[in-house]
Amino acid sequence: MTNRTGRHFLQIPGPTNTPLPILAAIAKPTIDHRGPEFAKLGLEVLTGIRTIFKTSGPVIIYPASGTGAWEAALVNTLSPGDRVLMFETGWFATLWNKMAKRLGIEAEFIKGDWRSGVNADAIEARLAEDKAHTIKAVAVVHNETSTGATSNIAAVRRAIDNAGHPALLLVDTISSLGSIDYRHEEWGVDVTVGGSQKGLMLPPGLSFNAISDKAVAAAKKAKLPRSFWDWEDMLAINEKGFFPYTPSTNLLQGLSVAIQMLHEEGLDNVFARHDRAAEATRRCVHHWGLEIQCQNPQEYSSSLTAVRLPEGYSADGLRAEILTRCNMSLGNGLGPLADRVFRIGHLGDFHDLMVTGVLSGVEMGLRVCGIPHQSGGVEVAMNYLSGNARATAQAAE
Amino acid sequence: MTNRTGRHFLQIPGPTNTPLPILAAIAKPTIDHRGPEFAKLGLEVLTGIRTIFKTSGPVIIYPASGTGAWEAALVNTLSPGDRVLMFETGWFATLWNKMAKRLGIEAEFIKGDWRSGVNADAIEARLAEDKAHTIKAVAVVHNETSTGATSNIAAVRRAIDNAGHPALLLVDTISSLGSIDYRHEEWGVDVTVGGSQKGLMLPPGLSFNAISDKAVAAAKKAKLPRSFWDWEDMLAINEKGFFPYTPSTNLLQGLSVAIQMLHEEGLDNVFARHDRAAEATRRCVHHWGLEIQCQNPQEYSSSLTAVRLPEGYSADGLRAEILTRCNMSLGNGLGPLADRVFRIGHLGDFHDLMVTGVLSGVEMGLRVCGIPHQSGGVEVAMNYLSGNARATAQAAE
Amino acid sequence: MTNRTGRHFLQIPGPTNTPLPILAAIAKPTIDHRGPEFAKLGLEVLTGIRTIFKTSGPVIIYPASGTGAWEAALVNTLSPGDRVLMFETGWFATLWNKMAKRLGIEAEFIKGDWRSGVNADAIEARLAEDKAHTIKAVAVVHNETSTGATSNIAAVRRAIDNAGHPALLLVDTISSLGSIDYRHEEWGVDVTVGGSQKGLMLPPGLSFNAISDKAVAAAKKAKLPRSFWDWEDMLAINEKGFFPYTPSTNLLQGLSVAIQMLHEEGLDNVFARHDRAAEATRRCVHHWGLEIQCQNPQEYSSSLTAVRLPEGYSADGLRAEILTRCNMSLGNGLGPLADRVFRIGHLGDFHDLMVTGVLSGVEMGLRVCGIPHQSGGVEVAMNYLSGNARATAQAAE
Amino acid sequence: MTNRTGRHFLQIPGPTNTPLPILAAIAKPTIDHRGPEFAKLGLEVLTGIRTIFKTSGPVIIYPASGTGAWEAALVNTLSPGDRVLMFETGWFATLWNKMAKRLGIEAEFIKGDWRSGVNADAIEARLAEDKAHTIKAVAVVHNETSTGATSNIAAVRRAIDNAGHPALLLVDTISSLGSIDYRHEEWGVDVTVGGSQKGLMLPPGLSFNAISDKAVAAAKKAKLPRSFWDWEDMLAINEKGFFPYTPSTNLLQGLSVAIQMLHEEGLDNVFARHDRAAEATRRCVHHWGLEIQCQNPQEYSSSLTAVRLPEGYSADGLRAEILTRCNMSLGNGLGPLADRVFRIGHLGDFHDLMVTGVLSGVEMGLRVCGIPHQSGGVEVAMNYLSGNARATAQAAE
Repeated sequence: MTNRTGRHFLQIPGPTNTPLPILAAIAKPTIDHRGPEFAKLGLEVLTGIRTIFKTSGPVIIYPASGTGAWEAALVNTLSPGDRVLMFETGWFATLWNKMAKRLGIEAEFIKGDWRSGVNADAIEARLAEDKAHTIKAVAVVHNETSTGATSNIAAVRRAIDNAGHPALLLVDTISSLGSIDYRHEEWGVDVTVGGSQKGLMLPPGLSFNAISDKAVAAAKKAKLPRSFWDWEDMLAINEKGFFPYTPSTNLLQGLSVAIQMLHEEGLDNVFARHDRAAEATRRCVHHWGLEIQCQNPQEYSSSLTAVRLPEGYSADGLRAEILTRCNMSLGNGLGPLADRVFRIGHLGDFHDLMVTGVLSGVEMGLRVCGIPHQSGGVEVAMNYLSGNARATAQAAE
Repeated sequence: MTNRTGRHFLQIPGPTNTPLPILAAIAKPTIDHRGPEFAKLGLEVLTGIRTIFKTSGPVIIYPASGTGAWEAALVNTLSPGDRVLMFETGWFATLWNKMAKRLGIEAEFIKGDWRSGVNADAIEARLAEDKAHTIKAVAVVHNETSTGATSNIAAVRRAIDNAGHPALLLVDTISSLGSIDYRHEEWGVDVTVGGSQKGLMLPPGLSFNAISDKAVAAAKKAKLPRSFWDWEDMLAINEKGFFPYTPSTNLLQGLSVAIQMLHEEGLDNVFARHDRAAEATRRCVHHWGLEIQCQNPQEYSSSLTAVRLPEGYSADGLRAEILTRCNMSLGNGLGPLADRVFRIGHLGDFHDLMVTGVLSGVEMGLRVCGIPHQSGGVEVAMNYLSGNARATAQAAE
Repeated sequence: MTNRTGRHFLQIPGPTNTPLPILAAIAKPTIDHRGPEFAKLGLEVLTGIRTIFKTSGPVIIYPASGTGAWEAALVNTLSPGDRVLMFETGWFATLWNKMAKRLGIEAEFIKGDWRSGVNADAIEARLAEDKAHTIKAVAVVHNETSTGATSNIAAVRRAIDNAGHPALLLVDTISSLGSIDYRHEEWGVDVTVGGSQKGLMLPPGLSFNAISDKAVAAAKKAKLPRSFWDWEDMLAINEKGFFPYTPSTNLLQGLSVAIQMLHEEGLDNVFARHDRAAEATRRCVHHWGLEIQCQNPQEYSSSLTAVRLPEGYSADGLRAEILTRCNMSLGNGLGPLADRVFRIGHLGDFHDLMVTGVLSGVEMGLRVCGIPHQSGGVEVAMNYLSGNARATAQAAE
Repeated sequence: MTNRTGRHFLQIPGPTNTPLPILAAIAKPTIDHRGPEFAKLGLEVLTGIRTIFKTSGPVIIYPASGTGAWEAALVNTLSPGDRVLMFETGWFATLWNKMAKRLGIEAEFIKGDWRSGVNADAIEARLAEDKAHTIKAVAVVHNETSTGATSNIAAVRRAIDNAGHPALLLVDTISSLGSIDYRHEEWGVDVTVGGSQKGLMLPPGLSFNAISDKAVAAAKKAKLPRSFWDWEDMLAINEKGFFPYTPSTNLLQGLSVAIQMLHEEGLDNVFARHDRAAEATRRCVHHWGLEIQCQNPQEYSSSLTAVRLPEGYSADGLRAEILTRCNMSLGNGLGPLADRVFRIGHLGDFHDLMVTGVLSGVEMGLRVCGIPHQSGGVEVAMNYLSGNARATAQAAE
């Protein structure tokens, strides 16, 4: 039913369009994960990934998709019955909250509106109340993939510090890592959770825990049962570039190329490129007269934009039409946003022409589906993009 | 200097964007070209390619790029000093004419304006004059890649017949095969020249001669020296799926997939898809207020559109800017059209979103380069595309 | 230092030499894991994988390497403090035992000699003693990858039944699945643990739990905390071909091809091919006068052969020499067998010529390293192989 | 019928087993052959290929398989009726001779026995007779792929010089280039013909003419009609890295990697590796008691060994059996050697383990087919290989 001619535009907010050199690296033959060639690869990626998290400390690489790294962050740092403070930014914060509860953690959830990021003041207030320091960790989502709202993690750090509270800070960066500026060390994060299939431009299957000394110390006392996710064995054997059990060799081959590509472009250029695509997208959406799910401009996400349809129109119908006509996948609304919202991923291996191509697909879809909008959005995006020299354009080769 | 993020848009009028399944087939290990597995592949592609040329007769496959098949068409059918009638549709007709002369053929060239296709009446008139039948062949280009003008081959056939002339009809379909309707057998063509890197969606490296019985008979008397291009050895050993010398095995692996893809879509759907992309492109160009090189709407090419810039503006400058900013390659002006014309290839593995993406890249380029145009062309293209259901959309899977 | 010319022979007992069509499938672009194309893929692999485990019941597919599926088998069926009976067949049985303890399980370990399989009588005796049924599960390794001994799982099943004991039966088939006959349903196994990187011929990164109704029932009462590994969410959403969190899309693309390849060859032919490679290897090793780690011929593994070196010779030195000279990786000795044993993997995508090639590399290595042996082992293997028509040779295409 | 499990061993004397990095390079998207990225690639391969031919002069690269470069060597240097002196080393020398005749050249053919290389004395004697210098060129095959005999090109050069004769020297190195030492410039060769699918480890589809100044000068007077093969246009536009017509872009991408791989190993190491594989093969064949087609040990080819079967046994039957049982392709006997000879290619991307693997496949085939031979040949090869440290082993990384 779907038209398969030409390139598929995978514009969900991750997995993203994997660059061909990364796919080629993944398709190289599997090597002996206990041999000298692997040791070299292992050290390379274990060192390289630190630069992406902006940390000088260790990053654990799991042969498991992102949800696993959420679990790892919790089971390595907490004990049964420990209290954790979380913030309801949207669907993914909610899922992480549910996971914590299933693992036997007392997970408090500060209510949110799914249209903005973490309220650091609310965090501070709650921590200030907690004189007994029963809260062992604050766990928040940097970029809420269900709503397109990015939270200010430095502010959350300050909130904890202002409250004089010893809680660990755990942050999910699955849909921001490698797309939106993030600083594990500078912002004093204890565990940063990441995944391979978004800004890192890999297929899903790898996930990460960047960890602070304080987190390592907490792990020594944490009593939640753990084995596969345990940091200790990893940290020991990672020193030589190896892993305690079979790693996802071929994805690591791809990770090595991904890190190299991000460095070649320069992380700051990568972030500027995402900001630019996001701004073009929002100007287009505003012109159409559609509402952006995230209500606070300072929290607009640079990796995706969630767009609300007027009452009575089906976002899933629109997505299906666009998939069939234009060979483009858009993200669906999650939880309470189902069928009300569609999400445009503008992250990963992406450039100006893809921005306007994607937006033209959406505009044609709106028209075909009879969804009220003001036409001309793509032109607004083009005006913006053609009036703003690329950050990277100056960088002569 | 060029921004390499994201996908490259290869929008020259061939080579085209090779689909990944074809690239994957080409990357399979080379097999023994004298073994049973190859025999199967050989028969498959030798049979399959006939359907693309719409002929029940043989198609020779050369392990050489398209220019070689031009030479093959001439040396297999003609003798030194033979007279050939050609028509100056543009750069490629001119090159073929020069080639004929270098090979020792008396190649007459009916003057053209590089803005239209073959004038069949002129052909008929010249043949009618040739009472002695000194003209042994008429050789024309079906789709002139330098100008975007498609000639009426059925009309050329009628012209020859009306003149009661026995000349062979040789036709170059390098940039139309698999993109624009073409009927080797029905139109009574004697030798059709094709290449792999356009509508067949392969990389360059294979070329074709579809041949009629009359052409085979002519080859028996033709005296131009030939060995590599000789049909005779090919025809004999092709019967078993083999080739007289080492074929381009890996490209044949890709050809098998390409033929299969064209059949899956259906040739008529393929042609309709190209017509649609071409129409959207032309509406956009007209809206911009730019001139299309081809002046006769009935001869507009469905595989490319050549666009003229106003006096004083550099087409090559525009192309360079678009390459740098948008990671898109457009075709250059050839011969007298150098720097005056740029060419948009809209052929091969291509869909609506790529059409609007490509056009948005051109519109942004025009703006950045300060080339006078009326903005809004992309919107015009979107209106056309979203108002016209895809020919293929009805075909439920 | 290592010679990189020519093909690498990855002859560790997994990961194995991934066939190129599987690598090509993995290198296809990532698709939307919530879209219709994925649903088709998901149903295909979820259904297909059952045939490999020989079960009509569900098989859970984790986006995680094999060790994760060990953990999943335990946390889904057991509660803190539950007693499990395990058998020390070698390194991997020991690791699984350690994992169980770390997860808070009382894991009994029947001592073994690392040179044979599971002693079913010992299992039966221990269960018979356990009148109170405090033992909740028996967990054994089907093919112990560290020693090359395959256990009789049907006998373990009978042992449990003879003891009239309700314990669940958990079996690790990571290095036997798709290489050695295994029957989840017929043998009454409750949870079978599998991995992608051995007989399934994929890179590492996927793992499996085939589960019985009894296991599903047990999961409802099991109290070990779990979220990522939880079967319940998986079972529900798998019905539509989807997963509760991001699956390892690209490896699933490869899995689909792997299952197809195993079916094309026929599982019985696959097993016969492994038996044959193993027998040729053992005849060669015996001729060399070297000792096979597994002492019981009825338990010889068809997927690998662990070979002991005479006292005073370094197995790791031999492996390093072979890697450098012959571009072949062999498995190392694990735990107490370190440097005493090397392991020849003869599983996965493997044929006669690779058997003799591999053995010739080992024989050359023995000679170069001055390790005492009787030369002529490869010839013995060739005699065996050339005297025994392939099981598959009869099967005309 | 053929067993497809495991890796195919493509042991015909070309095409050879293409290394995966080269296949990966070929599978990269096609680029604009008139754009800046191509210019870089073009210059890189046009410069790099000179080092493989050992020349400081130009090398023409054709988008055509090797037979085309034979034709190019002739039509660029000769005029209709010119006399050429050739030597019947075997099937390929015979084909080249036939080609010359078809192109209108008077091609003399010194009779050979198909079991040795070129007799330089015979060349000298014939040239000495030719006082009028009617012979315009001497054309010989460096490595006769049908027999496995390598000719002494330096001796042919001396023969011409000794005769004081101005004839051009044309040499076919299709199956020796990149495998056996060859020196276009030092040996005073005027046109060297090469192909991509042997020592260069690429699929077929590219071919080469390395040309001397004298050859360039001859081309200016040569009158054979030519266009596709014409050097002149090539030489002019190659200066900027471009080609006069569409090149075989994707194979050029592979060529760049191939040249890099040969340089990384070092050409002398490459040649030594081939010598070593050839010597191991011959020792094995001698032990079997089979006869090698090439009778002169000084002319044994390092890229292939042609083996004669005793009267009454079918070489093609043996090859078919080996293909079915062992998934290995061997070369067939050509022309009068059909079914009498099989050819083992031991060239390209090849190492010790592949040598012994290949020989074990042949030895098993001989046994299964009941062809009289002394078993133990593989062991003889292993003894040789394990007693001789690899030339490359010393080269620490």
